[in-house]
Amino acid sequence: MCLSFFAHAQKNDTIIIKNLATDVLRNSTAYENLRYLCKQIGPRLSGSANAQKAVEATARMLKDAGADTVYLQPCMVPHWVRGNKEQATIRFGGGKKALSVCALGGSIGTPKKGLTAEVIEVQSFYELDKMKMEDVKGKIVFFNYPMQPQLVNGGYGDAVRYRSNGPVAAAKMGAIAVMVRSVTYALDNNPHTGATRYNDSVTKIPAIACSTMDAEWVSNLLKTEKNVKLFVKMNCETLPDVESFNVVGEIRGSQKPGEIITCGGHLDSWDLAEGAHDDGTGCVQAIETIRAIKALGLKPKRTIRAVMFMNEENGTRGAAKYAELAGLNNEQHVFAIESDGGGAGCVAIGIDGMPNQEAKLRTWLPLFKPYGVLEMPGGGGGADIGPLKKYGTVMGSVNPGGQRYFDHHHAPNDVFEAVNKRELELGAIAMTGIVWLVSEYGL
Amino acid sequence: MCLSFFAHAQKNDTIIIKNLATDVLRNSTAYENLRYLCKQIGPRLSGSANAQKAVEATARMLKDAGADTVYLQPCMVPHWVRGNKEQATIRFGGGKKALSVCALGGSIGTPKKGLTAEVIEVQSFYELDKMKMEDVKGKIVFFNYPMQPQLVNGGYGDAVRYRSNGPVAAAKMGAIAVMVRSVTYALDNNPHTGATRYNDSVTKIPAIACSTMDAEWVSNLLKTEKNVKLFVKMNCETLPDVESFNVVGEIRGSQKPGEIITCGGHLDSWDLAEGAHDDGTGCVQAIETIRAIKALGLKPKRTIRAVMFMNEENGTRGAAKYAELAGLNNEQHVFAIESDGGGAGCVAIGIDGMPNQEAKLRTWLPLFKPYGVLEMPGGGGGADIGPLKKYGTVMGSVNPGGQRYFDHHHAPNDVFEAVNKRELELGAIAMTGIVWLVSEYGL
Repeated sequence: MCLSFFAHAQKNDTIIIKNLATDVLRNSTAYENLRYLCKQIGPRLSGSANAQKAVEATARMLKDAGADTVYLQPCMVPHWVRGNKEQATIRFGGGKKALSVCALGGSIGTPKKGLTAEVIEVQSFYELDKMKMEDVKGKIVFFNYPMQPQLVNGGYGDAVRYRSNGPVAAAKMGAIAVMVRSVTYALDNNPHTGATRYNDSVTKIPAIACSTMDAEWVSNLLKTEKNVKLFVKMNCETLPDVESFNVVGEIRGSQKPGEIITCGGHLDSWDLAEGAHDDGTGCVQAIETIRAIKALGLKPKRTIRAVMFMNEENGTRGAAKYAELAGLNNEQHVFAIESDGGGAGCVAIGIDGMPNQEAKLRTWLPLFKPYGVLEMPGGGGGADIGPLKKYGTVMGSVNPGGQRYFDHHHAPNDVFEAVNKRELELGAIAMTGIVWLVSEYGL
Repeated sequence: MCLSFFAHAQKNDTIIIKNLATDVLRNSTAYENLRYLCKQIGPRLSGSANAQKAVEATARMLKDAGADTVYLQPCMVPHWVRGNKEQATIRFGGGKKALSVCALGGSIGTPKKGLTAEVIEVQSFYELDKMKMEDVKGKIVFFNYPMQPQLVNGGYGDAVRYRSNGPVAAAKMGAIAVMVRSVTYALDNNPHTGATRYNDSVTKIPAIACSTMDAEWVSNLLKTEKNVKLFVKMNCETLPDVESFNVVGEIRGSQKPGEIITCGGHLDSWDLAEGAHDDGTGCVQAIETIRAIKALGLKPKRTIRAVMFMNEENGTRGAAKYAELAGLNNEQHVFAIESDGGGAGCVAIGIDGMPNQEAKLRTWLPLFKPYGVLEMPGGGGGADIGPLKKYGTVMGSVNPGGQRYFDHHHAPNDVFEAVNKRELELGAIAMTGIVWLVSEYGL
C-alpha cells in the first residue's frame, strides 16, 4: 500500500511539474518582466533612484503574478556613486592611450584633478609580497592576473581575490592606486566592476578595473617601455546610507502556513549594467514561481515567498535584514533557493542540507530531467539566503551553465539581449518545481 | 590485482582527460578556426566556390593540427543556388507590406516576373486535408505552425515537417506556392531556410519561409482582411551536380590501426548564414581532437579520424560516400561521434550501441563531469555518421544545451559572434575525451 501510494504520488508530481513547466514555457511573464527591469528601469545600484523604481516595479509584478500578500522590508543600504565617467590614460615615451576602465565598487575617488604615477605590473600577491616597499611606494600597482582558462567552474573565485583584496595589499606596500585586470574569461574591451574591500587600518587608495584587452596591451607595453605612467581620474564616493527595501510576495500555505519556503534573487545591480543576468534573472524567476503556481490554481500546503533581495552587490544588507526578521518573528524557514548565476539554461539544482534532507530532494531529480536539470550536487546556496542557514534552513540554488556568464558579469554588456527567453524560463521551471515539491512534502 | 589495475587505469585516464581538457582550454585553435570558416570564407553551401574554399582550408587546418595523413574523398553533390534575393509582398485592400523571407533549400523558382495569388493560412496538415480542393486551387498555402514552446527537446522535429513536406501536401491540393513559418522558437524577423522535399509524382511548387514576426502579422491580417494576396519572386534553381569532397585527417593507430574511430561535423552550411553553430562548430571540434591528442604527444592505439562531411544540409552525399568507402575498403569502424547540435556547452554525450557497449561507455561518465558532461543518454548519433551503423559502429553525439540553437539555425544570424569560445571548447573536450578513451580501450 505504501509503495502504491508512493507510485501514485510520483505520477501526480510528474503531472503537476509538467503542467507548471508547460505554463511557464507558454505563458511566462518572466522575459517581459526582465525586459522592464532592464530597459524601462536599467541599472539599479543600491541607494539609487532606479533601485527604488525597481522596488516599486517588482512589488507590482508580484501582485500581478497573484501573490496573496506583497510587502516591503525596510533596510539601510550603502550609497556609493560612481560620479563622472572615469578616465585612465597610459603615458609613455612613445605616446599615450586612453584605457577602457571603470572604478571598482566602493572605491574612493582620486584628487579632483586626478593622479599620475608610474605603473608596475604584478601577476600575483606572491609577486607583490616579494618586492621591496621602496619599489612600490608612490606607484600604481597593476594586478594582471587572468581568469584561468583551465578552471571550468572555479575560475571566478580564483581570480576575484585581486579585485577584492588588491587595494589593501598594494596600499600596504605604499602604492597610491591600483588597476585590476577585469575578472572575465573574455578577451574584449569591456571593463568589469565589482566590490572591492578596504581595511580601516590600511590607507584607502583608488581602485579601477581595465578591460582584458587593455590589460594585455599595458602588459606588452611594460615589456619594452620604461617609466610608463598612468593618469587616473575618478570622483566616485560613498554617501550616507539610505533606506531601501527587500520586496516580498507570498502565497500563504493552506495547511502549514508557518513553514516557509523562500525563493529569490537580488534586485540591485551594478550601476554600469542593466543587470539582466546579474540578477534580474533571479528576480523574475522567483516572481514566475508565484505566477505559475497561482495560474494553475494550486494551493501549496506551506507558505511560499518570492523575495527580491536588496544590496547583494555591495553589502548584502537585504539578506541580513531578511534573516534578522526571520529570527525576530520566530519563522520556520524550511527551504530557501536563490538564482544568482545568470540566465543560462539550468543544468543543476545545487542543494545543501542534512544527508537525509539531501537524499529526499534527490528522489525528485527524475522529475526535472525533462527540463534539463541533470543533477543535484551538494554545495547549493548563495549570498542572499546564506544567513538563513543558522536556522537550519536547507539551501538550494538554480545552477545554470556558467561559461558565458562572466563575459557579462558586472559589465556594460550585461543587457537584456544577452538573456535567452527559453533558458530563462527553464531556470524558472527548476525553481518553481522544487519550491512546489517542498511545499507539498516538506523536508 | 584486477581491481588495483582498474583503479590505476581510472586514475591515469583522469589525468589524461584533464591534460587534454587543460590543453583545449588554454591552447585550442577551435575558436580561431571557426572565425576563419565564418569570417574569411562565410556561407559554404554544397557546390559553391566557398564550399571548395572550406575544403582546402580545413585540409590545411588538419595538417596544422598534426594529423599524420590528410586526404579528400571525392563525392558528387547537389548544386542548388538561391539566385537574387527573394521578394515576397503582401497586398491587401489597405496597402502592402514586404515580408522577411528566404527560399527553402531545393525550391524551384517562380516564373521570372514572380507570381501572385491569394494566401490561405492553415495551422496543420490536418486542417489542410479537411479543405476542399477548389478552395486551395491556384492559391498560396501559408503553413503557420509555431514551434511548440512546451516541447523542451522535440520542438524541431515536430515543426519541421511543414518545411519538409508542406510543398507536396499543398501541391496535391492544387496550390501554386507555399509559405512556411520559420522553424524557430524565437519571435524575430529572421527567415530560416532548410531543405524541403519534392515528390516526382506531384507538381513542384515554389516554397518560401517567412520570419515568425511576419507570420504573426500575416495571420492577424487574415483575421480581418479578405482577398489578401501574396506576390512572390524567386529565381532559385538546381544546377547539375558538381564534385566536392569530404576532408579527412587521421592519426594512425599505434597498435590496432585497422580499428577506426571517426569524429566529425559537416562542412557545408546554408548559403545565407556563416554556419557557425551549424556546423562550423562540429568541424573545428573534430580538428581540435586531432590537435589536442598530438599536442600532448599521445599515441592512440586505434586510428582516429576527424572527418569534415560535405553536404549534410541538402543531400548527405558526403556521409553516404564515407560509409560506402568504409564498406568497399572493409574498414572496421568501432565508434563514430558527431557534433551537429550547435556550439553551446556540451551537457551530454549521446550514445547508441549494444547494451554492453553502452555500459562500457557509461563507466567513463565520471571522467567528463568536471567539464560539464552530466549524462550519456541513449539515442546518440546523427545524419553524417548514421550510415556507418549498418557496419555495427557504435554511435555518439556531442549534445549541447539546445535552447538557443534554433534562434540561429539556418538563419542569417548563425554567425561567429553567436558562439562562445569556452562553450565551443567544452564540446571539443567531450569529443576528444571520448575518442581518446575508445582509442585506448575499444568497445
